[in-house]
Amino acid sequence: MFRFTSSRLLRPALALTATVTTAGLVHRTASKPQSQRNSFNDALWNTTIHPLPAASEASQFSEPSADRAGLEIPEFPSFKASEVRSHDGKKGDRSVWVGYGRGVYDVTEFAASHPGGDQILRAAGGPLEPHWRLYAQHNAEWVLEILEELRIGNLMPDEEWIQEAEDINEEAGPYAEEPIRSPKLIVQGEAPFNAEPELKLLVHDQLTPNDLFYVRNHMPVPVIHPEEYRLEVVDTNGKMLVSLSLEDLKKLPKHVVAATIQCAGNRRNELDAVKKVKGGRWEGGAISNAEWGGARLADVLALSPSSAKTIEISEAHHLCFEGLDTDPGTGAVYAASIPVDVLHRVPDVLLAYEMNGETLPRDHGYPVRAVVPGIVGARCVKWLGRVVLSKEESTSHWQRQDYRSFSPGVDWDTVDFTKAPSIQEMPVVSSICDHSLDGEKKTISMSGYAWSGDGKGIIRVDVSADGGKTWQEAALRKKGSQKRNETYDWTLWDATIKAPANGKTELVCKAVDSAYNTQPERAESIWNLRGLLNNAWHRVDVDKV
Amino acid sequence: MFRFTSSRLLRPALALTATVTTAGLVHRTASKPQSQRNSFNDALWNTTIHPLPAASEASQFSEPSADRAGLEIPEFPSFKASEVRSHDGKKGDRSVWVGYGRGVYDVTEFAASHPGGDQILRAAGGPLEPHWRLYAQHNAEWVLEILEELRIGNLMPDEEWIQEAEDINEEAGPYAEEPIRSPKLIVQGEAPFNAEPELKLLVHDQLTPNDLFYVRNHMPVPVIHPEEYRLEVVDTNGKMLVSLSLEDLKKLPKHVVAATIQCAGNRRNELDAVKKVKGGRWEGGAISNAEWGGARLADVLALSPSSAKTIEISEAHHLCFEGLDTDPGTGAVYAASIPVDVLHRVPDVLLAYEMNGETLPRDHGYPVRAVVPGIVGARCVKWLGRVVLSKEESTSHWQRQDYRSFSPGVDWDTVDFTKAPSIQEMPVVSSICDHSLDGEKKTISMSGYAWSGDGKGIIRVDVSADGGKTWQEAALRKKGSQKRNETYDWTLWDATIKAPANGKTELVCKAVDSAYNTQPERAESIWNLRGLLNNAWHRVDVDKV
Repeated sequence: MFRFTSSRLLRPALALTATVTTAGLVHRTASKPQSQRNSFNDALWNTTIHPLPAASEASQFSEPSADRAGLEIPEFPSFKASEVRSHDGKKGDRSVWVGYGRGVYDVTEFAASHPGGDQILRAAGGPLEPHWRLYAQHNAEWVLEILEELRIGNLMPDEEWIQEAEDINEEAGPYAEEPIRSPKLIVQGEAPFNAEPELKLLVHDQLTPNDLFYVRNHMPVPVIHPEEYRLEVVDTNGKMLVSLSLEDLKKLPKHVVAATIQCAGNRRNELDAVKKVKGGRWEGGAISNAEWGGARLADVLALSPSSAKTIEISEAHHLCFEGLDTDPGTGAVYAASIPVDVLHRVPDVLLAYEMNGETLPRDHGYPVRAVVPGIVGARCVKWLGRVVLSKEESTSHWQRQDYRSFSPGVDWDTVDFTKAPSIQEMPVVSSICDHSLDGEKKTISMSGYAWSGDGKGIIRVDVSADGGKTWQEAALRKKGSQKRNETYDWTLWDATIKAPANGKTELVCKAVDSAYNTQPERAESIWNLRGLLNNAWHRVDVDKV
Repeated sequence: MFRFTSSRLLRPALALTATVTTAGLVHRTASKPQSQRNSFNDALWNTTIHPLPAASEASQFSEPSADRAGLEIPEFPSFKASEVRSHDGKKGDRSVWVGYGRGVYDVTEFAASHPGGDQILRAAGGPLEPHWRLYAQHNAEWVLEILEELRIGNLMPDEEWIQEAEDINEEAGPYAEEPIRSPKLIVQGEAPFNAEPELKLLVHDQLTPNDLFYVRNHMPVPVIHPEEYRLEVVDTNGKMLVSLSLEDLKKLPKHVVAATIQCAGNRRNELDAVKKVKGGRWEGGAISNAEWGGARLADVLALSPSSAKTIEISEAHHLCFEGLDTDPGTGAVYAASIPVDVLHRVPDVLLAYEMNGETLPRDHGYPVRAVVPGIVGARCVKWLGRVVLSKEESTSHWQRQDYRSFSPGVDWDTVDFTKAPSIQEMPVVSSICDHSLDGEKKTISMSGYAWSGDGKGIIRVDVSADGGKTWQEAALRKKGSQKRNETYDWTLWDATIKAPANGKTELVCKAVDSAYNTQPERAESIWNLRGLLNNAWHRVDVDKV
């Protein structure tokens, strides 16, 4: 069931009350069960019980902000719907205007840097609402903030326009068949679903329980019937090399690997605090650890006919993973690739059908996902349908136009995604997940995780209770068992440190991996426009100790 | 020829003038050719032409410092030689006193943390001078500073003591057969020889010329006759598996690999500035890049009898490299080891006999050295005599009690060398090697190197002309040709950046490797008692632009 009200990003004022009303607006909310409400924009258009904000109310907004998204703002000129429709990117100066609620926006220049590519042009000259119902990642405060920066006017009420904006598919929406999720997850985005566990829940056990494992979906969760499932391996020309049923796959030797998976955007909230970035504001929980069970990708590739093996596989430089999750608008599937050398370094690249001994849950790729130990989560493609041997990286948006990082000096005007490699192995990270004060002993106990990509073990975690002036070594829970270059799961750690005599303090942690790589000090120096790979020292302000 | 006068660490005042004289001291300096002078201490004892410093002169030293090492200091009590001799670590309270010039020092507690282990006990109750002639790394200001912190008194003049202190082996000393070196090298230590090129010389070419390649020797350079040379591979019981002459080795397929080698102590000077550390104060030039030619170690191991191959090699967890350079005092050889997994990840672990197309120079291990691409220089053992397959790491001092790094909070009282792994792969580094101002264009041009261990390529170098507030991307000279995980040689870079309008500025660089690891901001946060692995942002103060 699609859940509407739990998003932390939706301010109640925006979702339910800070709305505009227009003449002729049909109030449909009350007549629809909540399960069919598939966009927060419903509330914007459908709630007619509040009066139009007076000019004085609207003008309290001095700067573009999410709070006034879609509201009428008296300082701006008013446009007729027909005028907005004429800016459809094809006529005259080819400018692109769109509407959202009572707002009119010029997105001509923005379109070039739109994270979703030129999908935005589908809304050219019309209302955004129907499109945002399909691409519900727009259900986020930061999206509305960007939108308001593009404001050029107010829309004059128009019956036909409103009908179009409200044109809800009465069939169940693309997100109608999402799985039921744990209420303990902190929701960063409803549709596609993005959520992380509370940090302190991560350090209870070495393995993250399946229902707490962070979820980073890019599309609706597909409904896959196991008896219909096929895993295909194709060559660069699309020729089928291997086609397996789920049962076929399970007949191959089962391998189990403990591996941490982390979203490249983990701890984006700190980068966003430095300077606004696009994407969900993960708080540090977009990382989890599980034992994955499945067949080795190498074993599956070995099933291809020997001629194909020797010719196709040896010529492949990349392994492209294609998911069965599809874009509700375009039908495109999620896809991403890894360089083939990863397979030589990491024997246990798995096509996993088990997670912590259980059947892989739907949110994590049921029935089969790629698990590439030591590599960014974006390449561990869920609902895996095809593996394509290729001379090139995946041509998907997520491989070519996302999940790459840049210098702090690069912005959306200057970025060239071909200039940075796709993120594969990840840098060393650590976070403080929990802390508590022992008032009698005057000590602070801290626990957290540390991890590094490429199988690098964690050799040390340093903690500080004075913002990084002095350091103490934390105790690693699994120091002894780590392999130098084949440690794919995280290292949890604990420390007890003397509390400062009084007042505020800042707890800090930083980790060192087996190549003695360590973490940068401040998020400022690694800021990048996509808000990725924040592995700065993790800091927790403590108000009173 | 052993060079006496070029060490930058020897203040002229210490070497030649700030000396003491004692009654009966025999002036031998004039009668010895310089080539036979094998310790700077000669100067201290032998120079009799200067009067004993007056009390008023000595007392100008308010704190322990290298400047007063070996001088009489009136504030301290005087001891007879016999009393010093009674503190030989065996009698009474087992305390250990030593003498140096006119100084008496209690080294009882220091002995535990002495970088050279308990070798220091050989001098117990007697003069340090004869021992320091053998272990000439003591020819360093930082050593004298530490010594003076241990001062407990002055030595009363004693004929027999002076004779012992002056007991120079009239045969050529252990450093008599050192090779001739380029005067362009900046000498950090004379004997053993440690020297680095000026930074700006490093960025002229991708390959560092052999005579500019930094030199980090731990002992005298051995004299090895090629016709007598043998390379041996032995099992854990000392059983010979392979024995090759130099000609045999050259008959194996020759492989050439471009690989950067870096000393773990590179840029120690910055760590030393934070808080004193032991070791040579490398300024950033203890890293160089060459093309190495030689046989693959794997090919040599494959020569062992098949039974040995299957049993011994499969059981070995470490490959111990033993040099033919020997400790002049104990006869021990330099030794270090790598985990055997390195050999699986890096095919081109070489037994190199060529360097940049030339015969391997004596300072770099003639006739054969180990070159382990992506791994710290300390494991690239020079003058390689034996490879021991072992279940354990090398038991050498350099493997077990050195070349490991610790938390900034660990000092010589608390350090436990078993608690940190030996350094193998190295973290990402970069340095500004050269910079110049274009006064007309108001720009600063900068060049430097960037490198990361484990074969990680360099994907980006950021430079700043405002101390790290804003960043600009440098141009990488070999960006296109890098392999993600098999880039063993460094990446030189160039940048031109707008100069600040006036006044002082701080140039900064930081690199990002293919796992998106980056450098920590300040040396303070990675300070460690051995002064190793300083990969903090490199900063160059510019006084006037």
